[in-house]
Amino acid sequence: MKKSLIALACASAFAGSANAQSLTTYGIVDMGFVSESGPASIQKLTSGAQSGTRLGFKGTEDLGNNMKALFVLETGIAADAGGFNQSAGFARQSFVGLQSDSGTLTLGRQYTPFFLALNAVADPFASGLAGNAQNLIPSSGIRMNNAVKYASPTFSGVSGEVAYGFGENTAGNDRASKNVGGSIGYTDGTLNVRLAYHKANGTTALTSDLSDTSTILAANYKFEVAKVFAAYSDNNVEISGRGKSRDLLIGVSVPFGNHTFIASYINKNGRSTANLDADQLGLGYTYALSKRTNLYAAWASIDNKNGAPYTVGNNSDVGTGDRAVNLGVRHTF
Amino acid sequence: MKKSLIALACASAFAGSANAQSLTTYGIVDMGFVSESGPASIQKLTSGAQSGTRLGFKGTEDLGNNMKALFVLETGIAADAGGFNQSAGFARQSFVGLQSDSGTLTLGRQYTPFFLALNAVADPFASGLAGNAQNLIPSSGIRMNNAVKYASPTFSGVSGEVAYGFGENTAGNDRASKNVGGSIGYTDGTLNVRLAYHKANGTTALTSDLSDTSTILAANYKFEVAKVFAAYSDNNVEISGRGKSRDLLIGVSVPFGNHTFIASYINKNGRSTANLDADQLGLGYTYALSKRTNLYAAWASIDNKNGAPYTVGNNSDVGTGDRAVNLGVRHTF
Amino acid sequence: MKKSLIALACASAFAGSANAQSLTTYGIVDMGFVSESGPASIQKLTSGAQSGTRLGFKGTEDLGNNMKALFVLETGIAADAGGFNQSAGFARQSFVGLQSDSGTLTLGRQYTPFFLALNAVADPFASGLAGNAQNLIPSSGIRMNNAVKYASPTFSGVSGEVAYGFGENTAGNDRASKNVGGSIGYTDGTLNVRLAYHKANGTTALTSDLSDTSTILAANYKFEVAKVFAAYSDNNVEISGRGKSRDLLIGVSVPFGNHTFIASYINKNGRSTANLDADQLGLGYTYALSKRTNLYAAWASIDNKNGAPYTVGNNSDVGTGDRAVNLGVRHTF
Repeated sequence: MKKSLIALACASAFAGSANAQSLTTYGIVDMGFVSESGPASIQKLTSGAQSGTRLGFKGTEDLGNNMKALFVLETGIAADAGGFNQSAGFARQSFVGLQSDSGTLTLGRQYTPFFLALNAVADPFASGLAGNAQNLIPSSGIRMNNAVKYASPTFSGVSGEVAYGFGENTAGNDRASKNVGGSIGYTDGTLNVRLAYHKANGTTALTSDLSDTSTILAANYKFEVAKVFAAYSDNNVEISGRGKSRDLLIGVSVPFGNHTFIASYINKNGRSTANLDADQLGLGYTYALSKRTNLYAAWASIDNKNGAPYTVGNNSDVGTGDRAVNLGVRHTF
Repeated sequence: MKKSLIALACASAFAGSANAQSLTTYGIVDMGFVSESGPASIQKLTSGAQSGTRLGFKGTEDLGNNMKALFVLETGIAADAGGFNQSAGFARQSFVGLQSDSGTLTLGRQYTPFFLALNAVADPFASGLAGNAQNLIPSSGIRMNNAVKYASPTFSGVSGEVAYGFGENTAGNDRASKNVGGSIGYTDGTLNVRLAYHKANGTTALTSDLSDTSTILAANYKFEVAKVFAAYSDNNVEISGRGKSRDLLIGVSVPFGNHTFIASYINKNGRSTANLDADQLGLGYTYALSKRTNLYAAWASIDNKNGAPYTVGNNSDVGTGDRAVNLGVRHTF
Repeated sequence: MKKSLIALACASAFAGSANAQSLTTYGIVDMGFVSESGPASIQKLTSGAQSGTRLGFKGTEDLGNNMKALFVLETGIAADAGGFNQSAGFARQSFVGLQSDSGTLTLGRQYTPFFLALNAVADPFASGLAGNAQNLIPSSGIRMNNAVKYASPTFSGVSGEVAYGFGENTAGNDRASKNVGGSIGYTDGTLNVRLAYHKANGTTALTSDLSDTSTILAANYKFEVAKVFAAYSDNNVEISGRGKSRDLLIGVSVPFGNHTFIASYINKNGRSTANLDADQLGLGYTYALSKRTNLYAAWASIDNKNGAPYTVGNNSDVGTGDRAVNLGVRHTF
């Protein structure tokens, strides 16, 4: 059993040593009550409604000459019933990389540039709770397997990243499961703008010539009393046959002491023959018990048109109905 | 690689900081030789005969105002052949909670109040080794999924807990997999008494109207030279159709320096038509190499009557025969 | 979140305490580009081409009287796509043991003495990269389930180990999955010689009377400018029917500052009716960015004769073609 307070235990004593290496054990445990209603109705206790429950190990090593080695090994955990999320252990993130003044090169299973733009710039709900923007905006790939990613350094607030995911199909089919994406962004601490693209090919020989593509232009701006969000995305979901759509998001996040109020509205304009349109309104509230622990409450409702099939989910659950309430606690360690 | 001695490294240096947070990595590795005989016979090396091999991460955060956040993420490991126990990773315990002067509220996968009474109050073998009381006493649920548990603070030695596990069945069937349980106990450090109940519904649509229920009254008393145990349980195992039974347990645990001698006798009185009666005698011995490491030896035998099907298992194995010998080593970290 | 520099944080403060216990979190993340060609051709990003990506927890406890308890729990991770290697979580190594002046006794899932000889004494590629000796030399068992292993102390440079793996088959078949092995070796720091044997029975009732056996005599010698390797093995692969063979390996490893050049040649002489012969030439290069992080490049080619089916793999991949190139980065923590 190893127990230590959360702090750099006597760190300064080793600060001068060459090839200093750090290892951090971290995670989130998030459990909440979720009530979904609409066509189907269910009351349940869900792991990760706001942020996926996870356990991670990450580290860096100073290689000298302004170079660093770094790694992340992070597993999702279904704290409600045991087991792993993302269909396998350590399938949240697993990569190794090198960082220098010229940028960061990482290899392994990683987030797509598109998802990072949706999550960090576009969505006031940060892909969590009932208002999760992914309920309507297709993320065409949250993570990429077998991926090489290059992230540039930041020049005058501008930075970008490109990522390529090998398909690794043996039967002469090198298109299946292939992923490619990139983003370019600007931030000055107050304004945050990002343009991102992702294309994911089908995973089987039959669907390898089909792909899901999404392009998003997202921005947020930090006023004194609130942060406002806006995003516009253009999507083509070929693999499931759902077709083309355009999404418009506006949102706001209002901090007030330990309280934060969140709201977003998304309009999906289906552009396939079936014209599957939908609107989502999401409202959220978090109360910080500390910097690391918060309570949360959220409500969202989707108005499906022309038989559109969208459901209100949360970070870990695609949902079953067109309305949902969340109520829970999230602890970060 | 991070290496640190097992101690609070420089803890005092941070004791005064607000929102102090602790993270503990802990576990048990237990491997032993198990020989089972009776109708079927096998010699094998088993992981977790005394205590399930496990790796856990737990922590607390001081939230001020006498409140704490806490979490546990604990996985079982099959150290004999690799893989996870409890059918999935991190399925031993996974929960998050808040603790205050008013009690502790936890959400996630957790032990049932019934099992905790059987394990900690009734059974001198603590659910481990050949003499494991669960060989005969049906625990109708060791752990509960999707569970909310409230544990009261202790008033004059009296405390209790109640737990409810959501069924989470989508097809309008909210009875399947539902669990409910509770316990109330008293301890003064010498006497330890607990009354516990658990009811677990069947997990499928077909069995959701059936349930396994168990009620146990358990006590132990710490004399100067020995701790004596007694328990009485009343069970109705509907799901498998094994039916009603009553179990009586008496046991003793005798510490002697680094040696501990354990014995228990259980009488099961089957009350279904088939009248499946059985008696179990279990003998155990542990030798402490340190506070954290011990050797163990155990023997148990079940006398089945009227074709009763009970087998001698251990903590991690239901067993195949009506007699078993265990011999192994357990290390706690 | 617990973060600490890689060093014994304030260790000396506790050095005097009784039953001192250590816990180490460690691992490797290795990702590389692999191009395989020959009958089948593929370009991919692979986890663990040089050394399997892993996360481990290990510790020791001082029991006094020159005795120690020790354990290892180590999982393989597929960092390219998430999930576990070795077909299950914590299936790299999971064992507990006791160590004294009389040797070390360990119980659990462990490396075979044969594999340790192949890996540590015979193969300049240490079972990694394209030149991996296992491409041709059948290791008849890298790890053993349900295993008891005794490793002797070292007397004048001589030490040995014996291991037995219980089959654990219930249906009266105690031969299936049984493993037995051993090794004896000598080292004076410059010369390293080891003789090892392993026999693994088939895992099913149908194949339990068949076995794969391998005997290897391996040696390496550390000259001032290079380490040279030689090994001879005699194998009988009954279970897959590939039959008898003899393998001869010669190799060299040349360190030069941060650079290391590796080469090996293996001749397999098939001795079954089909006479499945093959030769492998492997070339490798590693560049140390630090003691813990290196880049790697490797190439190997197999010349199969008489329709022999051997492929060029690496540490984590059996390969699909008879030529392969590896290019990657390995970080150890």
